[in-house]
Amino acid sequence: VDLVTGDDLARAAARLSGRLVRTPLLESARLSDEFGVRVLLKPENLQHTGSFKVRGMLNAMLARADGGALPAGVATFSAGNAAAAMSYAARLLGIPAVVCMPPGAVEAKVQAVYRYGGEIVFTDALVATCEQIAAERGFLVLHPFDDPEVIAGQGTTGVEIMRDCPEPDLLLVPVGGGGLISGVSAAVRAAQAGGAAKTKVIGVEPATADAMSHALATGSPTPPPTRPSSIADGLAAPFAGPNTLAHVQAHVDEVLTVDEEAIRDAWWPLVESTKLLVEPSAVVGLAALRAGLVKPAAGATVVLLLSGGNASRTGIAEVAGAA
Amino acid sequence: VDLVTGDDLARAAARLSGRLVRTPLLESARLSDEFGVRVLLKPENLQHTGSFKVRGMLNAMLARADGGALPAGVATFSAGNAAAAMSYAARLLGIPAVVCMPPGAVEAKVQAVYRYGGEIVFTDALVATCEQIAAERGFLVLHPFDDPEVIAGQGTTGVEIMRDCPEPDLLLVPVGGGGLISGVSAAVRAAQAGGAAKTKVIGVEPATADAMSHALATGSPTPPPTRPSSIADGLAAPFAGPNTLAHVQAHVDEVLTVDEEAIRDAWWPLVESTKLLVEPSAVVGLAALRAGLVKPAAGATVVLLLSGGNASRTGIAEVAGAA
Repeated sequence: VDLVTGDDLARAAARLSGRLVRTPLLESARLSDEFGVRVLLKPENLQHTGSFKVRGMLNAMLARADGGALPAGVATFSAGNAAAAMSYAARLLGIPAVVCMPPGAVEAKVQAVYRYGGEIVFTDALVATCEQIAAERGFLVLHPFDDPEVIAGQGTTGVEIMRDCPEPDLLLVPVGGGGLISGVSAAVRAAQAGGAAKTKVIGVEPATADAMSHALATGSPTPPPTRPSSIADGLAAPFAGPNTLAHVQAHVDEVLTVDEEAIRDAWWPLVESTKLLVEPSAVVGLAALRAGLVKPAAGATVVLLLSGGNASRTGIAEVAGAA
Repeated sequence: VDLVTGDDLARAAARLSGRLVRTPLLESARLSDEFGVRVLLKPENLQHTGSFKVRGMLNAMLARADGGALPAGVATFSAGNAAAAMSYAARLLGIPAVVCMPPGAVEAKVQAVYRYGGEIVFTDALVATCEQIAAERGFLVLHPFDDPEVIAGQGTTGVEIMRDCPEPDLLLVPVGGGGLISGVSAAVRAAQAGGAAKTKVIGVEPATADAMSHALATGSPTPPPTRPSSIADGLAAPFAGPNTLAHVQAHVDEVLTVDEEAIRDAWWPLVESTKLLVEPSAVVGLAALRAGLVKPAAGATVVLLLSGGNASRTGIAEVAGAA
């Protein structure tokens, strides 16, 4: 497995420049006060399609187009954000997209795919169905997280963070299949190459959807024994990948798990204090802080990577109404 | 009445630099698609205290401190956002703040004042009570919108917009007492001084809280005959002021009104499509677009100024749950 390099990240950033939202790095006075640290937010819920996923999908497609190999169409499997991201990117490039999604996918994510002209096949056999359809139609399967160009695209999130705040003490990154933390940790290490590895990168995944922790423990990206399921639907990847596991092993300091109650309890407080509509997957970093699972030193600069905002409308109504 | 100048705005921007959030200008692909124009969002819900109001309050206090006249304490009257903003700014400067608010103020705004150490007096006689308390304690009354330094501070929102997008075709700005649109329109005209006045600035206020429309119609900032009241609680100013009326007369192209149903109907769509938690006051520009009250040319660049995010929790639960 080759790790994503600073050059890969620079090429990805150049491809995406002007096509996506340059998300800011926002200081949260409220969360800073609450935790006695400087809390910065990277709000990828404000990205086109409502999540960081479009960075990876668009970079992977543009990389193939640059290489003269724009496919006839593209296919992927996803809880929804990668599906919407692929649909958006495919529409930009003028090719069709078909996405396999689980039958219980969040409605906001289903609607996002349709909005961008994607075709959805609902199935529990996500990977097999995706590969079969792609073979039938001559489409390219883009892995939603374990493709090197997808990882490089997600890594542009980290490139921007390090440009806006050159020396954060800690990054808390949601982990599903691991594409985001792979790219972001590669960007952090590339930005700090030659210097001391000052910035800690900590991944957070749901205790009930811990494919990466399982892969780290076993040393291989085999699926965990129980099928992942979480209120953080975007993190319920059935397995990590060889590429993402290698990046996490090389670059990430620790991967923690948080329980469902902690995620649920942190959801509305995050929305209310930051004024950002996020989905539960984006909340795991704050949940880890609230639970005391990470204890940054007083005054440390802590970046919460808010991965997406495609929240269930009924979920938001429930947590907002639960006062 | 002296209008705020480019120099006033530059001084305000210098005072506030590094103390507040430099909010971005975000492109909304979804709203752009929906209206066939380029929609840019200025998300002041992401500002410290959850609204633009802190710009004006902090600038007004710093201007007095720069002049060697930091008061013993400050007082204002407000539906809530100016109250929270004053409390935050006063805490930064180490002086006490007392704010008069209506008994029915939104709970999120009440909590924001307490969070920043402000003292609240609930009263329907907002102005008289505020002046009496300030006189008793020797505090300075800062008008929540009709103070020239407050207007200059709010205008830094416009300075930033024009820096990030030098030639927008249209700005849609929520109007309560008129402090925001006064400062922002002054910034637009200052940025375009000497050139053609290309950018239209249109104010939007609730039909049931139309103090500025009434002032424009009568040529004086007298209170409208019926007491203002709106779901957009932040815009229910009982009157415009001589300073804000003069700025609107000089710089603003038009002030429109939108009805309550249009505001309510646009609230969740704005939150859901932009992933920004905003309060109803911030929604009036989108409501005007949806109602066809403004019809920008195809491809025009339209800036929606999202004034704040201190939404009622039950209100959000209701509109999110109304699917």
